Amino acid sequence: MYRTNTCGELTLKNKGQEVTLCGWLQRSRDLGGMTFIDLRDRYGITQLAFNMETNPELCEKARKLGREYVLQAKGTVIERASKNSKIPTGEIEIEVHELNILNKSKNPPFTIEDKSDGGDDLRMRYRYLDIRRNPVRRNLELRHRMAMLVRNYLSGKDFLEIETPMLIKSTPEGARDFVVPSRMNPGEFYALPQSPQQYKQLLMVAGMDRYFQIVRCFRDEDLRADRQPEFTQIDCEMSFVHQEDVLNMFEGLAKHLFHEVKGLDFDKFPRITWHDAMRRYGSDKPDIRFGMEFVELNDVAKGNGFALFDNAELVVGICAKGCAEYTRKQLDALTDFVKRPQVGAGGLVYIKYNSDGTFKSSIDKFFSQEQQKAVADRFGAEPGDLMLILCGPAMKTRMQLCALRLEMGDQLGLRNPDVYAPLWVIDFPLLEWDEETQRYYAMHHPFTSPKPEDQSLLDDESRWGDIRADAYDIVINGVEVGGGSIRIHDRELQNKMFHTLGFTDEKAYEQFGFLMDAFTYGAPPHAGLAFGFDRLCSLFGGADSIRDFIAFPKNNSGRDVMSGSPAPISQEQLDELMIDVKQTAKQ
Amino acid sequence: MYRTNTCGELTLKNKGQEVTLCGWLQRSRDLGGMTFIDLRDRYGITQLAFNMETNPELCEKARKLGREYVLQAKGTVIERASKNSKIPTGEIEIEVHELNILNKSKNPPFTIEDKSDGGDDLRMRYRYLDIRRNPVRRNLELRHRMAMLVRNYLSGKDFLEIETPMLIKSTPEGARDFVVPSRMNPGEFYALPQSPQQYKQLLMVAGMDRYFQIVRCFRDEDLRADRQPEFTQIDCEMSFVHQEDVLNMFEGLAKHLFHEVKGLDFDKFPRITWHDAMRRYGSDKPDIRFGMEFVELNDVAKGNGFALFDNAELVVGICAKGCAEYTRKQLDALTDFVKRPQVGAGGLVYIKYNSDGTFKSSIDKFFSQEQQKAVADRFGAEPGDLMLILCGPAMKTRMQLCALRLEMGDQLGLRNPDVYAPLWVIDFPLLEWDEETQRYYAMHHPFTSPKPEDQSLLDDESRWGDIRADAYDIVINGVEVGGGSIRIHDRELQNKMFHTLGFTDEKAYEQFGFLMDAFTYGAPPHAGLAFGFDRLCSLFGGADSIRDFIAFPKNNSGRDVMSGSPAPISQEQLDELMIDVKQTAKQ
Repeated sequence: MYRTNTCGELTLKNKGQEVTLCGWLQRSRDLGGMTFIDLRDRYGITQLAFNMETNPELCEKARKLGREYVLQAKGTVIERASKNSKIPTGEIEIEVHELNILNKSKNPPFTIEDKSDGGDDLRMRYRYLDIRRNPVRRNLELRHRMAMLVRNYLSGKDFLEIETPMLIKSTPEGARDFVVPSRMNPGEFYALPQSPQQYKQLLMVAGMDRYFQIVRCFRDEDLRADRQPEFTQIDCEMSFVHQEDVLNMFEGLAKHLFHEVKGLDFDKFPRITWHDAMRRYGSDKPDIRFGMEFVELNDVAKGNGFALFDNAELVVGICAKGCAEYTRKQLDALTDFVKRPQVGAGGLVYIKYNSDGTFKSSIDKFFSQEQQKAVADRFGAEPGDLMLILCGPAMKTRMQLCALRLEMGDQLGLRNPDVYAPLWVIDFPLLEWDEETQRYYAMHHPFTSPKPEDQSLLDDESRWGDIRADAYDIVINGVEVGGGSIRIHDRELQNKMFHTLGFTDEKAYEQFGFLMDAFTYGAPPHAGLAFGFDRLCSLFGGADSIRDFIAFPKNNSGRDVMSGSPAPISQEQLDELMIDVKQTAKQ
Repeated sequence: MYRTNTCGELTLKNKGQEVTLCGWLQRSRDLGGMTFIDLRDRYGITQLAFNMETNPELCEKARKLGREYVLQAKGTVIERASKNSKIPTGEIEIEVHELNILNKSKNPPFTIEDKSDGGDDLRMRYRYLDIRRNPVRRNLELRHRMAMLVRNYLSGKDFLEIETPMLIKSTPEGARDFVVPSRMNPGEFYALPQSPQQYKQLLMVAGMDRYFQIVRCFRDEDLRADRQPEFTQIDCEMSFVHQEDVLNMFEGLAKHLFHEVKGLDFDKFPRITWHDAMRRYGSDKPDIRFGMEFVELNDVAKGNGFALFDNAELVVGICAKGCAEYTRKQLDALTDFVKRPQVGAGGLVYIKYNSDGTFKSSIDKFFSQEQQKAVADRFGAEPGDLMLILCGPAMKTRMQLCALRLEMGDQLGLRNPDVYAPLWVIDFPLLEWDEETQRYYAMHHPFTSPKPEDQSLLDDESRWGDIRADAYDIVINGVEVGGGSIRIHDRELQNKMFHTLGFTDEKAYEQFGFLMDAFTYGAPPHAGLAFGFDRLCSLFGGADSIRDFIAFPKNNSGRDVMSGSPAPISQEQLDELMIDVKQTAKQ
């Protein structure tokens, strides 16, 4: 070893010891008689001391070193004159008697500090320097720790981690696949998995019973902010279980992570049906760190001559406690907020419940004080509160109000990243109508089972929208961190489902034939769930972006600016693969 | 849960308990008054008993079930009349009072037994049924267990598992890449990693110090038997270490696996230089479960008028203890063996040391009894031994003799799969001459460091073949299970290495520029190693084929016969990707 100790472990207990440390020069301070160097490695920082009087030659050498030089220092652990209580090694320093430069460094393009002066692009281009910074390093350490916790927990529950193939068959249903031309089978392609869905179901048919895998998945989507073309899932599947068993198992996993990583313990996670979640929060992933639930107002709001309300399918609002003092300017800003294209509301109605018991609203013209009182009572509002009301088509309005609720939560500091509010959203709709293609799509995926009591509705096309699925999401702080479903294990029901989704028998068999075949050989009842691991890590790490928790992420064009991938390949490679790049795509 | 217990856990301790089991019908026996069903799940087999007298209806139902039906049985644990001591549950059975068919099954295409009647192709096509068989299931369980052991061991040594990208940049050096067309960047391609080599070195530059990853890798090679286009590595890298530290660390990991999985404990693994391995065993992955080391005979074999010997660069042989009684037929078979094209020798010379002290050989014409005695003395042979001798160009002859040595090991039962003989092979040559392209290639990869004492030879092209690398392989029972090297961390040396390999500055920078750039910002001394995880599992599982340890392997054409991948994709997909399949490849 080049070193006897790390830069994070020496304290007064080691006083007098001869040690060798290695690391990077974080900073150096030249105080005339003394030169100090902060030597950094993954484990911490230790101060090296050089004395101009006792060892001028070495001290001169130390003074010439630049930032991020890689050093090996041998010396004695001594007590510091001026201690630094902020770091574990702050009571000691190393009186150096030998110093070796293991490697030089150019001056880094940004500062290697917790708060760097480097912009996002620059830091991504030099990601290997960015990772030297504490916040990024800690994120990757957290990710490692969480992966270990997940694996050991599930392994302890008899789950087996089984690796499924990365080179699979392309299935056009769902998002777009990345494909891989096969040289040995010209004209044919593999696809990279969007998830190991079919393979994990096959493993259940294979009797493997409890499967998991922390696995890379791929989706060739137009990248929205904070989406990655490759991402990691904790993918799980179980046999001989009901929904209750699955929820309990993975609630157990989530609680274990909260306990180990955050020191937090939870009672049973609340559960809410998808319909209730939409009605109460306008979202299938409600942030329940705070209340401010939706209050539906049709009966008290309609019939007062205010056409917007009278003509609306739904009048619905939230009550912001203690916000009656909001200024004109603040209210205008809220109106602007809901009118932004991303939210899309036509306008915002407010009612202030003044502390003197009177009401002041944007609809004073139409609503008497008593009528406003009736609305306030419906909200359970008290003097000092501010009521914010939207109206329009029911679902659209709910989603607009959801955005406003989250905005108010932010403004009132109700969305503290150190507070965690997990819940289950259950009973998702089985099918989702798509206006564009004029057909139903599986909301979850085509293998999700309708609830047994709703299965008969599959025979009545007019009721397809009402069918509920045995599907569930785990949501934390308004973020969907996982989801899954009871799977269809009966081939007949699976066929019916494919027909519902507009597959002909041939098309279904062409795409899912091997799974359908497998189901004829004794498929057990089974169910599963997958967590988005990148997202889960970012949530536990208290950050918004998943990129901060991926060692080498890609940018929004799917590009790795560090390595310069993707890139053109040689004509020889193309020839071997028997493919051509279309003329229009050539550069 | 559909069940209260598994089929592998009930014993007499549970006598009298009401239980519910789920599983697959392994076999049923109709004995007239009684019907017995072996119910199987991942955990074992439990016998279900149905009594025609006490419950004729249920018994009739049970008789109608086919193989591999999925059943749920409720009943009472009772003591068996005739016990089966071969299985843990053999002392009990379930007196069933409720039986539910959870799913039917077609008759499987092969028997779900330890020894199946299904051929390889059929079992691969129905791999989900193949996995139901104990041997395959146990292999996957072993693989899971070994992955957990590796992760927990390395994590305990401060290694962080860090996920590196799967969509990376293509690097023509080395084996052929699988490529992935980028839709968002038309005309450009990602490559799938052959290993995370460059990323793990960047993580060292990033200060991460101790990295590992159990990671999928890809190689688009013409598949030899038992090669897979996707395979799994335990990929590791460390900073601030010398070769000695790396060997000790991963020897520790291997010992840990041997101890935990096989109950075997080892002293320090032997180490042998590459040159010695070639000289003593004719292989860089010698099987040292048995001796039979090479004996070089030039001085005693030449000059006796036997032209083949006299003209050969090397005369070399092995001594097979106690084989002097080999018949003419056996000796002819050995001659045929070495003459096979895969071995390629021109012929085989034998000398029998008869038990009466005389010699009988295929070169009696040229070698007197005394001269044969001199050869025998060189071998340290005793009466009763058989000496087998080859001659020709040194390296070729050694490799031929290696094949013969292994064949003799097999014939003499010296290669017991329950015996494990690990060792390190060190000091590999840095460069390998390729006749075809008339240039040197990196034997390991272009980032491997020459031994410090040999670095000066880089300046003398005539000596390039003599340069030794700080590169090492871990070999068990003649199988290379892992390998690695000290990396070059100095940019100047790396540049020199690229030049040696025939890269221009531009070409090197185009391909490895980001790594070379990274090395200018304080790269620490570092080194690493990767284990072939599939191979490691098969070795610990006592099997020859890695396919038995992969849940869903591909065949020798890179095809998954179960899912039918690869397959053509739609024109729409091709259009989106801006690529065409060449006309000649279309089917």
